[in-house]
Amino acid sequence: MCCLSCEEDYVRRDAGTCKECYEEASETEEELKREIKDLKAKVEFLSFLSPTDHHHHHSSGRSHGSGFTDIFLVAAEDGPDGGPSVPVPAHRAILANRSPVFEAMLENEMEESRSGTIKISDVSYDALRAFVNYLYSAEACLDEQIACEFLVLAEKYQVKYLKAYCEKFLVSKLNWDNSIVNYVFAHQHNAKLLLEAALSLILDNMDKLRKRQEYSEFIEKHPTLVVEIYEACLAKQENTAAPKDTSAKS
Amino acid sequence: MCCLSCEEDYVRRDAGTCKECYEEASETEEELKREIKDLKAKVEFLSFLSPTDHHHHHSSGRSHGSGFTDIFLVAAEDGPDGGPSVPVPAHRAILANRSPVFEAMLENEMEESRSGTIKISDVSYDALRAFVNYLYSAEACLDEQIACEFLVLAEKYQVKYLKAYCEKFLVSKLNWDNSIVNYVFAHQHNAKLLLEAALSLILDNMDKLRKRQEYSEFIEKHPTLVVEIYEACLAKQENTAAPKDTSAKS
Repeated sequence: MCCLSCEEDYVRRDAGTCKECYEEASETEEELKREIKDLKAKVEFLSFLSPTDHHHHHSSGRSHGSGFTDIFLVAAEDGPDGGPSVPVPAHRAILANRSPVFEAMLENEMEESRSGTIKISDVSYDALRAFVNYLYSAEACLDEQIACEFLVLAEKYQVKYLKAYCEKFLVSKLNWDNSIVNYVFAHQHNAKLLLEAALSLILDNMDKLRKRQEYSEFIEKHPTLVVEIYEACLAKQENTAAPKDTSAKS
Repeated sequence: MCCLSCEEDYVRRDAGTCKECYEEASETEEELKREIKDLKAKVEFLSFLSPTDHHHHHSSGRSHGSGFTDIFLVAAEDGPDGGPSVPVPAHRAILANRSPVFEAMLENEMEESRSGTIKISDVSYDALRAFVNYLYSAEACLDEQIACEFLVLAEKYQVKYLKAYCEKFLVSKLNWDNSIVNYVFAHQHNAKLLLEAALSLILDNMDKLRKRQEYSEFIEKHPTLVVEIYEACLAKQENTAAPKDTSAKS
């Protein structure tokens, strides 16, 4: 028989689908691709250029609406050249839409709302600018460091969508080598998805990890986390042991 | 053979794909579905509730940021109870982002920018509210009338994405019965996609259409459009005639 997809001959036991199902699947794929195209256009329509994204400014044909800013964000750390941090302009309406924390801050006539300036602690100017840019466009160029900085900001300002995005990225970069660092980080910032993925890697590599210098430092600094790992380890052993036990009895 | 998809037996000539291609296609489908899920989450993150969308207000867990409005839109036509039109509150930054016409109006210190009120002519209060809502969320419940009203607004304020969306909707509702009305409408509002689809339907149903009362009114009101249709009709006849001619010669 000749495959309608790859056009190569195959034998009976390598048969996949009948013709009807093949045609249906092709149609479904086309439909899904159309839906993706529509959704991408929708995302483009809905996204903003942030007021500091000079890079793309005036280059695309579309409107920007990056005027009319009515608030500034200021990073606690130094500005781009080591000088005092440059305020990042933004729109109250957009900040409030993306974060319930900003919303409460701005709608309740708090200090930030009156002064027109929100101070953001523990963040560099570059990270803050990228964070604001993300709030406007849902776009970011992540690496592991930026993902960690963003996750901290996303947790603090309850930007759930960004937090999930960073967690997914960090999970994709997990390996047994960075599993402990990530486990500690996930614990500190309430990142459940990352925590579970890191824990599972740690449990699979306990033998290797326990031999490392890093591990004794980990015990010293975070003894309660180590206890949690051992408890998970024991629970796992019991779980894998249990079915064997019952099967032996029956 | 048994189809791996519908699990029914089929004969050799109804064979579709080999196993490998079937598995690849299933994987692709899963990936596309994941991408759709991610894009839908992105759209949700980027969309706003418009300041007048009381319906959903306070019902979802998410922030709204529908405060801080700094401009009003007013429909030229009557308000909801036949009284004077109620101003629709909005944000300059969002209007300017979605429409280059609003952007120019608001950034260049024109009358609208100074007064804080934009008058929108030839539109009902309900349509204006739905239009503003669309600019905030890219969501609308279209029927043919709303799609026409939106298309007019989208053309006037150069909201390309909405215009394409309305055209697609109107094309999906085309039939030979409404083809002339749509052709005239598309011509008036520079809707190329709709124009071509309507023209093609008209050409396919010239015999039926020419017998109708409506058609003579059409000739009376829009003689130049009728000329265009006849010219397209002749061009089509020549095109379909041409290949036959050459095949007869060869």
